[in-house]
Amino acid sequence: MKDLKTLLNEAESCNSLFENSIRAVEIPTCKDFLKDGVLHPVKFSSMGKPLTTKDTEKVNTAFPKTSTASGNQIVEANGINDNVIHNKRVAVLFSGGPAAGGHNVVVGLKRILGNNNTLLGVKAGPKGLLEGNLFEISDSDVNKIVNTGGFDFLGSDRTKIKTDSQFHQVKETCIKYKLDAIVVIGGDDSNTNAAVLAEFLFKNIKEDGSGVQVIGVPKTIDGDLQIGDLLPISFGFDTATKIYSELVGNILQDTPSSRKYWHFIKLMGRSASHVALEVALQTKPAITLISEEIAEKKMSLEEIVDSIAKVVVSRAKKGINHGVILIPEGIIEFIPEMTALISELNEKMAEFKDILANKEPGEEKRDFIYAKLTATNTKLMATLPDYIEDMLLADRDSHGNLQVSLIPTERLLIDMTARRVKELDTHVKFNTHNHFFGYEGRCGAPTLFDATYTYNLGLTAGSLILADKTGYIASIMNLDHGGKPIALPLTGLLNIERRHGHDEMVIEKALVEVNSNAFKYFSSRRETWASSDLFSSPGPRQLWGPASQQIPVTVALNRKYTSLLFDF
Amino acid sequence: MKDLKTLLNEAESCNSLFENSIRAVEIPTCKDFLKDGVLHPVKFSSMGKPLTTKDTEKVNTAFPKTSTASGNQIVEANGINDNVIHNKRVAVLFSGGPAAGGHNVVVGLKRILGNNNTLLGVKAGPKGLLEGNLFEISDSDVNKIVNTGGFDFLGSDRTKIKTDSQFHQVKETCIKYKLDAIVVIGGDDSNTNAAVLAEFLFKNIKEDGSGVQVIGVPKTIDGDLQIGDLLPISFGFDTATKIYSELVGNILQDTPSSRKYWHFIKLMGRSASHVALEVALQTKPAITLISEEIAEKKMSLEEIVDSIAKVVVSRAKKGINHGVILIPEGIIEFIPEMTALISELNEKMAEFKDILANKEPGEEKRDFIYAKLTATNTKLMATLPDYIEDMLLADRDSHGNLQVSLIPTERLLIDMTARRVKELDTHVKFNTHNHFFGYEGRCGAPTLFDATYTYNLGLTAGSLILADKTGYIASIMNLDHGGKPIALPLTGLLNIERRHGHDEMVIEKALVEVNSNAFKYFSSRRETWASSDLFSSPGPRQLWGPASQQIPVTVALNRKYTSLLFDF
Repeated sequence: MKDLKTLLNEAESCNSLFENSIRAVEIPTCKDFLKDGVLHPVKFSSMGKPLTTKDTEKVNTAFPKTSTASGNQIVEANGINDNVIHNKRVAVLFSGGPAAGGHNVVVGLKRILGNNNTLLGVKAGPKGLLEGNLFEISDSDVNKIVNTGGFDFLGSDRTKIKTDSQFHQVKETCIKYKLDAIVVIGGDDSNTNAAVLAEFLFKNIKEDGSGVQVIGVPKTIDGDLQIGDLLPISFGFDTATKIYSELVGNILQDTPSSRKYWHFIKLMGRSASHVALEVALQTKPAITLISEEIAEKKMSLEEIVDSIAKVVVSRAKKGINHGVILIPEGIIEFIPEMTALISELNEKMAEFKDILANKEPGEEKRDFIYAKLTATNTKLMATLPDYIEDMLLADRDSHGNLQVSLIPTERLLIDMTARRVKELDTHVKFNTHNHFFGYEGRCGAPTLFDATYTYNLGLTAGSLILADKTGYIASIMNLDHGGKPIALPLTGLLNIERRHGHDEMVIEKALVEVNSNAFKYFSSRRETWASSDLFSSPGPRQLWGPASQQIPVTVALNRKYTSLLFDF
Repeated sequence: MKDLKTLLNEAESCNSLFENSIRAVEIPTCKDFLKDGVLHPVKFSSMGKPLTTKDTEKVNTAFPKTSTASGNQIVEANGINDNVIHNKRVAVLFSGGPAAGGHNVVVGLKRILGNNNTLLGVKAGPKGLLEGNLFEISDSDVNKIVNTGGFDFLGSDRTKIKTDSQFHQVKETCIKYKLDAIVVIGGDDSNTNAAVLAEFLFKNIKEDGSGVQVIGVPKTIDGDLQIGDLLPISFGFDTATKIYSELVGNILQDTPSSRKYWHFIKLMGRSASHVALEVALQTKPAITLISEEIAEKKMSLEEIVDSIAKVVVSRAKKGINHGVILIPEGIIEFIPEMTALISELNEKMAEFKDILANKEPGEEKRDFIYAKLTATNTKLMATLPDYIEDMLLADRDSHGNLQVSLIPTERLLIDMTARRVKELDTHVKFNTHNHFFGYEGRCGAPTLFDATYTYNLGLTAGSLILADKTGYIASIMNLDHGGKPIALPLTGLLNIERRHGHDEMVIEKALVEVNSNAFKYFSSRRETWASSDLFSSPGPRQLWGPASQQIPVTVALNRKYTSLLFDF
């Protein structure tokens, strides 16, 4: 028998008992890829449904090659691809923030490309593509990463490829490594980038005049890359929301145990409230704020705070001095008066950028900006605590946007709610804690759903490449019955949006719809959840046993599935 | 088939698929309790080992009845108790912060007391015992709570029973409910309280002159209630550290994925660093601070910061601009210069309490106190950021102690490290995030180990009651081979400690020992972990499958077990 120290040393570098055990978990495969139990790439045929947006005409003009080639038609897996393809060289890269399951996309790609073709990994994201930092991925590599979390096998970054010189760097990398195809694993912006790359690389890249195919894979824990039944969810969302739900569930269970705290929990997820809504449906806390509803109802900060305070007071009257409130990361930008304030601030900060650079943070900076704002905004600024004002005046990100994730919204709401509760009833006990769950949800071991979904997305992306497709994003439909590999033309997803002062063609972020089934169900239950403790928890993610097959509740409701479990 | 909304409604109130599934998990039982596969209470016999501390003589004088009755002898399970006991009425209560597995202690008690006896639940902790807030626990209650996390079935609080009038309130409750025994599920302070109650209730409580037995059960996520092989660990520690380890593991996996952040993570656990050490052994981050080592080596804050900064710089030279640092919650109190400062502050704040009450927080309060401190302490105060100074001057808890958990040590270390890194090398990138993991670890569903351990602790506590024992704490030895139910005389655990200016007899908190096997193993590996990424993760807690039987690594190392898995 090995001694304990040897066992512990051997567990280093992701070789714990759990990590080694999950590598051996067999991943369900869509039946389209199987013939006599053996894995095969699939062919694709049109579903007879073009994919369009309000701006399709202009997009087709801007993307003539890829839009013509695809006819903006959605394609679906349609039988085994019997052409044995040799010697394709395919590069794969991660783009943007990590999400659980990314490694299994690589595993799926490697296994479907097989030994006849070569899979190369791009190190450190789009930047690695520009710098030509690629290496060949081996079978032993994929055996090591299968079913594990993180993007650490390749690394990632947030570089956007948009300048001419960047496009030519990509072309050089394609030539240097004799690439036939690139797979971009990323979110809305990265897939927008994939659409642009697909068009640029369509032909005349290599010596023989041929092009380089580009295929996207939908990743983001935020869940804001989803297109109805056609792209039910981006990968990583299920794992992140299950991690957050377990933590929220644990804290909910703590509240009637210790009987004295309100926990204000901010959840990662950028603008959209998909994460908050999913976690709410999994855990049933007293209050969940949904940014999109706040925008729809044009609620003021004061109204939001008042609605929270009233729940606090009414629970206190029943002897319940505890509760949990979920707050979406991006909420500030959905409160109309705050949007107006931030928008004027963005404008003035850009206008007076040089002067502001020489002002001290704090009072000096505040006083200068105050004098430039409209009366309404000056007044609103004055009601906010100092630390929020300082955040609103902090440096913008490289896209000129306020970094909403840095705003301590949870503290703002606690402070304002405490004040309001005291106004409503001085006897109410209101002790609080605040949390921000974000980074801990991006790189956990994938749920069995995310592990399965990503592996099959990898098989789909690889099949698209072997079928000579370009400018598509891989997807799987019908998650509750069988799983159907399909692909959406990227040009069919592009809209014209005003960004940084000019029009851009981008994939629109999917927000929570207040008339969706998921929101309506939430809305039908929330008063009941607010009035007493009815919380629940999906528990820690199980890779084995009876609770391992769950899919996101929001997806099941919105897609009108007949089950909360996946069935591939 | 049920529609989704019905399924979702039915999941409310802790009835998710996971929660319902864990209720059906069969819990391993120590063979001592089984005869022909049927559950039986056990008898106890002396192990021939008295339990003593440096103050045993004085303790025996202060606790004449219970110390004489037990002879301070450790007892072990020794065969089935064939006397069929009828009509015992037993109350059970949770005391202090919640910990995973508490519900299973209740389940074990209920099942071992059987239908011949009555189990009553005390609502809301010791306060409920004073107020006489008890109810009878039914079989269906225990079927609902089995294997679930939290203390919410009964609730808990932190009331200490120490005044004469409180003791008489307890006596009244005993009479009112005709109690024969009380089980106190709590940490070091609560079990100290149990020792005092056992002595007070020893006899002449009920009309027939008999007393009320008191049995303790060792709970605390902090792990600071452990006594070598005799009490390998308190329950809740395994679950909390596995929850934190998964989160730390997720963040570790994120660091080489996004390649740009240092995460400073503070971990709950009060004074002792058991939690931080366990999480370090589970996850192998670049740096883990251990308070007890800092005290032992008399390190200054500056030296600690310097040691962190040097790791940051040396990793940066290898192109690693990321990492994770674990910080125990109570670290501040183990830095000798900080202890001296806090001690003088505690003194001066008590001395000038009335004057301070009228001072504004911030500059006014600071200036007043500064003038009262020694030169060394005034100088140290001046090097600390304002927000730390304000915390050090914040209101004390009801015991006159600084609330260390409120000090943002992680921010302090980030700010000071950033300054030091810049001094060492201006080119090093040092982007940071900070986290505090605490409340999310107390009420999660118990690990299979904690579920098993607590159920068997409940069986042991119930057996002690049926064997007419009082003044004992239940324990299980030999976790890696069979599990052996034993009980330790509470008087044998008491030491004299100076608290709030006078001597008290208390159970001493177990701290991390720098010459323990666990610390020595950590110490032998940490430089390797600091120099490159060798991290690992125990994963989310699994209730099924190959990774479900793990015990804490620190326990396995310190107890020289031959396995990292439990075997009951």
